[in-house]
Amino acid sequence: MTDEPAERIVPAVHDTAEDIASMEIRGAATIADAAAGALATQAEASTAETPEAFEAELKAAARRLYETRPTAVSLPNALRFVLWDMEGGSVDALRESVAESAAGFQTDLAEAQDRLGRIGANRLRDGDVVMTHCHSTDALSCVKAALDQGKDISAVVKETRPRKQGHITAEQLREWGVPVTLVVDNAARRYLERVDHVLVGADSIAADGSVINKIGTSGLAVNARDRGVPIMVAAQTIKLHPGTLTGHTVEIENRDESEVLEDAERDRITGGDPDDADLVVENPAFDVTPPRYVDAIVTERGQFPPESIVTLMRELFGTDVGEPWE
Amino acid sequence: MTDEPAERIVPAVHDTAEDIASMEIRGAATIADAAAGALATQAEASTAETPEAFEAELKAAARRLYETRPTAVSLPNALRFVLWDMEGGSVDALRESVAESAAGFQTDLAEAQDRLGRIGANRLRDGDVVMTHCHSTDALSCVKAALDQGKDISAVVKETRPRKQGHITAEQLREWGVPVTLVVDNAARRYLERVDHVLVGADSIAADGSVINKIGTSGLAVNARDRGVPIMVAAQTIKLHPGTLTGHTVEIENRDESEVLEDAERDRITGGDPDDADLVVENPAFDVTPPRYVDAIVTERGQFPPESIVTLMRELFGTDVGEPWE
Amino acid sequence: MTDEPAERIVPAVHDTAEDIASMEIRGAATIADAAAGALATQAEASTAETPEAFEAELKAAARRLYETRPTAVSLPNALRFVLWDMEGGSVDALRESVAESAAGFQTDLAEAQDRLGRIGANRLRDGDVVMTHCHSTDALSCVKAALDQGKDISAVVKETRPRKQGHITAEQLREWGVPVTLVVDNAARRYLERVDHVLVGADSIAADGSVINKIGTSGLAVNARDRGVPIMVAAQTIKLHPGTLTGHTVEIENRDESEVLEDAERDRITGGDPDDADLVVENPAFDVTPPRYVDAIVTERGQFPPESIVTLMRELFGTDVGEPWE
Amino acid sequence: MTDEPAERIVPAVHDTAEDIASMEIRGAATIADAAAGALATQAEASTAETPEAFEAELKAAARRLYETRPTAVSLPNALRFVLWDMEGGSVDALRESVAESAAGFQTDLAEAQDRLGRIGANRLRDGDVVMTHCHSTDALSCVKAALDQGKDISAVVKETRPRKQGHITAEQLREWGVPVTLVVDNAARRYLERVDHVLVGADSIAADGSVINKIGTSGLAVNARDRGVPIMVAAQTIKLHPGTLTGHTVEIENRDESEVLEDAERDRITGGDPDDADLVVENPAFDVTPPRYVDAIVTERGQFPPESIVTLMRELFGTDVGEPWE
Amino acid sequence: MTDEPAERIVPAVHDTAEDIASMEIRGAATIADAAAGALATQAEASTAETPEAFEAELKAAARRLYETRPTAVSLPNALRFVLWDMEGGSVDALRESVAESAAGFQTDLAEAQDRLGRIGANRLRDGDVVMTHCHSTDALSCVKAALDQGKDISAVVKETRPRKQGHITAEQLREWGVPVTLVVDNAARRYLERVDHVLVGADSIAADGSVINKIGTSGLAVNARDRGVPIMVAAQTIKLHPGTLTGHTVEIENRDESEVLEDAERDRITGGDPDDADLVVENPAFDVTPPRYVDAIVTERGQFPPESIVTLMRELFGTDVGEPWE
Amino acid sequence: MTDEPAERIVPAVHDTAEDIASMEIRGAATIADAAAGALATQAEASTAETPEAFEAELKAAARRLYETRPTAVSLPNALRFVLWDMEGGSVDALRESVAESAAGFQTDLAEAQDRLGRIGANRLRDGDVVMTHCHSTDALSCVKAALDQGKDISAVVKETRPRKQGHITAEQLREWGVPVTLVVDNAARRYLERVDHVLVGADSIAADGSVINKIGTSGLAVNARDRGVPIMVAAQTIKLHPGTLTGHTVEIENRDESEVLEDAERDRITGGDPDDADLVVENPAFDVTPPRYVDAIVTERGQFPPESIVTLMRELFGTDVGEPWE
Repeated sequence: MTDEPAERIVPAVHDTAEDIASMEIRGAATIADAAAGALATQAEASTAETPEAFEAELKAAARRLYETRPTAVSLPNALRFVLWDMEGGSVDALRESVAESAAGFQTDLAEAQDRLGRIGANRLRDGDVVMTHCHSTDALSCVKAALDQGKDISAVVKETRPRKQGHITAEQLREWGVPVTLVVDNAARRYLERVDHVLVGADSIAADGSVINKIGTSGLAVNARDRGVPIMVAAQTIKLHPGTLTGHTVEIENRDESEVLEDAERDRITGGDPDDADLVVENPAFDVTPPRYVDAIVTERGQFPPESIVTLMRELFGTDVGEPWE
Repeated sequence: MTDEPAERIVPAVHDTAEDIASMEIRGAATIADAAAGALATQAEASTAETPEAFEAELKAAARRLYETRPTAVSLPNALRFVLWDMEGGSVDALRESVAESAAGFQTDLAEAQDRLGRIGANRLRDGDVVMTHCHSTDALSCVKAALDQGKDISAVVKETRPRKQGHITAEQLREWGVPVTLVVDNAARRYLERVDHVLVGADSIAADGSVINKIGTSGLAVNARDRGVPIMVAAQTIKLHPGTLTGHTVEIENRDESEVLEDAERDRITGGDPDDADLVVENPAFDVTPPRYVDAIVTERGQFPPESIVTLMRELFGTDVGEPWE
Repeated sequence: MTDEPAERIVPAVHDTAEDIASMEIRGAATIADAAAGALATQAEASTAETPEAFEAELKAAARRLYETRPTAVSLPNALRFVLWDMEGGSVDALRESVAESAAGFQTDLAEAQDRLGRIGANRLRDGDVVMTHCHSTDALSCVKAALDQGKDISAVVKETRPRKQGHITAEQLREWGVPVTLVVDNAARRYLERVDHVLVGADSIAADGSVINKIGTSGLAVNARDRGVPIMVAAQTIKLHPGTLTGHTVEIENRDESEVLEDAERDRITGGDPDDADLVVENPAFDVTPPRYVDAIVTERGQFPPESIVTLMRELFGTDVGEPWE
Repeated sequence: MTDEPAERIVPAVHDTAEDIASMEIRGAATIADAAAGALATQAEASTAETPEAFEAELKAAARRLYETRPTAVSLPNALRFVLWDMEGGSVDALRESVAESAAGFQTDLAEAQDRLGRIGANRLRDGDVVMTHCHSTDALSCVKAALDQGKDISAVVKETRPRKQGHITAEQLREWGVPVTLVVDNAARRYLERVDHVLVGADSIAADGSVINKIGTSGLAVNARDRGVPIMVAAQTIKLHPGTLTGHTVEIENRDESEVLEDAERDRITGGDPDDADLVVENPAFDVTPPRYVDAIVTERGQFPPESIVTLMRELFGTDVGEPWE
Repeated sequence: MTDEPAERIVPAVHDTAEDIASMEIRGAATIADAAAGALATQAEASTAETPEAFEAELKAAARRLYETRPTAVSLPNALRFVLWDMEGGSVDALRESVAESAAGFQTDLAEAQDRLGRIGANRLRDGDVVMTHCHSTDALSCVKAALDQGKDISAVVKETRPRKQGHITAEQLREWGVPVTLVVDNAARRYLERVDHVLVGADSIAADGSVINKIGTSGLAVNARDRGVPIMVAAQTIKLHPGTLTGHTVEIENRDESEVLEDAERDRITGGDPDDADLVVENPAFDVTPPRYVDAIVTERGQFPPESIVTLMRELFGTDVGEPWE
Repeated sequence: MTDEPAERIVPAVHDTAEDIASMEIRGAATIADAAAGALATQAEASTAETPEAFEAELKAAARRLYETRPTAVSLPNALRFVLWDMEGGSVDALRESVAESAAGFQTDLAEAQDRLGRIGANRLRDGDVVMTHCHSTDALSCVKAALDQGKDISAVVKETRPRKQGHITAEQLREWGVPVTLVVDNAARRYLERVDHVLVGADSIAADGSVINKIGTSGLAVNARDRGVPIMVAAQTIKLHPGTLTGHTVEIENRDESEVLEDAERDRITGGDPDDADLVVENPAFDVTPPRYVDAIVTERGQFPPESIVTLMRELFGTDVGEPWE
């Protein structure tokens, strides 16, 4: 047996890492579940003889997993959650703590969206109108739970250019029998007057309380604040971005131009010049909403003002400002 | 000769009225020009023997014209402008005043957009970036005049769903050599950071300083104010809505659902139910931006804070809170 | 005949002055009507032989009237209106101009509230809910006109401590069949959510656009702006305070303590000490709402943004920054 | 001995539950003290033989108590506090932890208002003027402590319609020698100019940082923010509403109409019609102030920005988003 | 006699033009007075035989004067004022109108600061504290008039880096016996709490209501608004910038670095490198305060909300959006 | 051996106390380091026989140190940090915990600024422009770390009257090759348009989220918020003011007049009167920026919204609202 922790990583961890890298395993919750499971497997299979060796091995496994997709928010969260709870004076104690922590994480994860939905639903009153942006299953789980509580809810659904995910939201809501008014994004302000809540999901949430979500969220939130409509963000805790504890800003992906502009449209604008470098299409996927435009972030651990979410982040994923697998 | 003013309306006025009604004559400026011309014709052809009879005749002609399309802003403006300046102690003096007033109105109208453009261009500095919404020839005339002054201007163009008139704006700007960044409406706030002016046109402007313009303008203006970007509205004075002097609100047209949602899209959302009355599409054409979100309204008569535009409205079109043709 | 203008004031003017001073003549409109009439009488009766003498006489009469109640807003307005329009090269021409101007003022005054009501009503849509503060016949005339136009209007009525004039408003509205929700002043913010307009009157309006109205108006307006509810002030032009053109601030009357606190209540608070100088009750009658919290001022001459009302003030009552009777 | 936990609840717990239900025991602090004591009694008297049985018994006792008045904020807080700290591997250890926790809770409770007062007093400087709303012994304890520190404090006291609890505040302040200016609620904004702090209590405080307090608080806070006056809320930690962790909104009681309107007043308004259903009086007891209008919440555990109060709530009463007695 | 208007300009006009160009004549009021006088001289001396020739001559004289210092605000104002009022059907009538208009302008100018002071003083109450920025005789005339009215006024004087003109203001105020608290510019916000008015002058005022004044004004105004302190700008009407009617922005002068940084200071910062191009000192003389941060502009013609100043500008200097001498 | 704890304080603690009192030991970090070290020495040297005696001794030592400079923020922090972590059932366990805690504190302190810098640097993007106020090594460490990360950063440096510490900042930045634009404080708002971050340090940070920093910070922050520029405060955790947990406000030092005004300048202002008591110079060293104007506080423990900093404060320095050495 080698002393080099990286060489003692068990095959199951390598398999999971490869599946994450190849996107065989994808989706925030699925990745997080797999990563926690992999650490549990490593702990169970470890032949380390000292606590130090055990810890080094677990860190190596975590590092192996982390490096497959460092920008996926839920992956480091799963790793940090398990490592943060690892404690004990013996290898056996450590092993047990990892097993417990990983299992707890996985159990919570499985129930998170339902719990979150019930919490968010408590903010909605019978007869309320919500305005949605994009398509978020976390956000919709709040509506679903409210319906299950017997409340009448209706919705103003923004179509959400460029990809019109509002249509998916509308489809889901209609399936549940929720009356839907569909509007273009430009019409949102006009309809805020008749809306009781703006209800959106999140791609990730930063330590400074900012909400990173589908492009258009921040402009909507500013208008909602101006009109006195409360803004509620539904996000499981795996969306809390631990890298932002150390000031890292979340990189905003710029997606393909073709989502915005078809070739024929480009041709008409440029007068048919295929080399017109001065017609640029920018298509950022997300934007950043500062916490002062958000009223509450609803998680499966309860609701929080955005300015307090950092406390939850540190409670769940540790206060270590470095990367705990280093 | 009859004493009934309405019966002394000359055929040319009736012809113009019919052409406006049938939309043979259309477009704000074209309608206004035709209406002023028709009043001049009436004045010239009048056989009235007393000033009172002459005035009654002109009012009858104005009323005939007005009733063809009472919601077109520029039509009552042309009528009010000419009637407001009608003065004199004799039929001849009155006739002359009408002829002069109508001719002056028509001359000003022909030059208005160019004048407005030069004035608006003075607000732009070399190197400035403007953000546009929808397509407005008044707004673009400011950019054109700035280019003619030798300034480098570039543009962030919002596509402006549902009808994507931003594409027309982009096409025009590219023809003039202006570098264009095209973004979906949802991305506007994100790009305000690099913008020096929001520059939009107006469908009409109300006495309380509100700007009625393409849906999405108000949401953009609120965000621009929040980010510290000045908002400039380019609008010829024929867009000043005299009915609003008396508190009338401007009716917002709700356009066809098909601009927003294609049949196939509707089908998917409703699960194919053609009778789903609970999927409503609302497609308002315009919205209302309160004056506190606008920095300046640029007209061919100079620039004004929106809160002062009522003074210009009264100066040009009269202070009569009734309808001067009644 | 004396050369001293003050000695040539006719008895009818003295009578009117005395009636105003003794409050026999009271109420903004009644005072204004009487003052304009008195100037007309003076003009008619004048035996002045030169235009200069005539003008001096009219000014003396105006001064006589003005000094009876210099703080009544409508009194100097009536005087300024008539003097501002006085013009002509001969005594007869001057006399006629005064007669005409006074008569015009009186006619307009008689119709002002109805005109104002129709203008204000145009801002209200069918089904709208208005929130009222205190009792204002100008404000109520807007509701009445809206009802006459066939619109359904309902009201949230603030009781308006200390004198509870909201009860009078509620009584009037119920007489007209308007559904009324009565709330204490403290509850206003909570009910703004369901309100479409805040609708108040004005005690007077200053040249800087400030609205002086019943105590509590400014706090309501700040909350309405914060909640996105438009604020509409209904005020005849005799409420425009010409003294404020020259920067004068409007003196706020402090009314009797007994409106706020009964003797028994004071006794309990002070523990029965009749000489407790450290329990002070302040009971200001009015407060000042800055123009940025008001959307429109509705007058019988049309609606205006508050920042433009100075233009109307100067148009009606003159641009003389001194007192024109001096 | 039965295995059914509910059947092993001791008589003293049943007695306390009945006294709470019958409101023999009332007042937030008294209820909380009694509930904690009852759990201690249950722990002491328990004959449970396993830790699991002991815990089940305590939960049953807590549930029995909770169900008497589920809307009283301090009751679940006392229960959660004691249960949250219950730990140990044996019945004896558990018993001891409950005894300690309950005793600690009761001791803290007894000293809480004095501690809170001293903390709040530290925010006040010599010579400061506070504005009060309603009557709050927590808020007044800050003034008292400041006086005890030798500071001169004076007060502007809002009368607080409909029940005029401001009179009680004024009476207390005068007893302490504090100079009082009493004003109607409508006059509050006008007097903010001379005020250094708005100082209010709280009925309860929500996890999203909102302050639920006497109707009128939110309107006052919005005006205070607008005028730059800091707002300080004095509230013992038993006012922190644990149900809001899970998104529950606090139900606002609508009190009797007669507090607002006497029969004679109603008669006059309705013209004597006893069946007039369209004169509705709404009399909500509380309103909700969002955290962005509050500067600090002062508790006996220190002062907190409202956005951080959720952290204290979780620290004291547990992070369990369910009800820990279920 | 030539037909070429420019050749008929009288020597006195040329002399005045040269004195303005050489800055022999300087200061806003002195320049304006001289320019109006020169036009009067031209009118008096004109030998034009037709009204057209007379008007052409006057325009030529105006153009001659204008071109000497086109950026001095008061110069085009004087010219526009006189030309705007020029009217009559004969040379004699025109001549008289110019003489009257020029004389009226000069008389008003001589009295303007005193009138303005009395108007501004009316906004100040006995006991008020004003905060000043830079040194403005218009602003100080308001304080002087208030003192003359018997009011106690005290001042917080900002030193106003880089040139510390606050010292001149302090000196003048102390001479008048006004108690002065001198603070650095950085301390302004801290002292706003005890201030009743911010009182500043203006370098010029734009048609869109913006106030161009000494650098630091806009930052102060934003803070004053945030703290609820009203902002009052004292400016004679010769400061109204007619070029801004046509959208021209006011060019901001960048003054010499040495006002900000002495050579020794630069040496220390650059480590003695005389060629360090990356240490740039920017020293703009003025900044632009948008109208929404200003409460009133006080002129000798009365006070105005900044959004209405364009009306006064057009009333005094004409509505011609071109240059009336062209 | 005495029973009186104070008499058992070891000489090394007394020495440290004296050096702090005499300011031989000065600077926030140096004081904190010395105080922690002194407690460790006391613990090591203690001859206490019971845990109680040991604790009493340590508290006495802490009290001795605390009383030397009770207003230095970092001193009580060091003491609280060590005492907060003191735990154990025996003297030896206690001794070890103190040693560990003190050593940990000292180690963290030594690395804090570098850690903080790396965290703050993560908020800066390549090409960003920062605006600085005063001179803060914590703030500059963020710029340095960003440069080390290979980012191009440039700076707008406010000179920061009265002591112009901006020059020191400029010097440091130039040494690192950062391009600097130096402006007077009055010019700050004008340059915010081209700035990406306002970056300042802190003198201390209060439990309510307020930032106490060099005079001028709050005015800058209000303007930055108004212009949409994020504000970032760099502050090591020893700047968190534990006294503010209990509501204490931070005393603001008023520094010597001579920093603001030279004698010659005073002479000119007072006209040479050496006894002019009505020319007061106020020179406060700091001001208070409320949390709503700050986006993030960057510490060596991560970044936090200002509203959450109280959580970190309690985590590091204890939740005891009293003084833990009493």
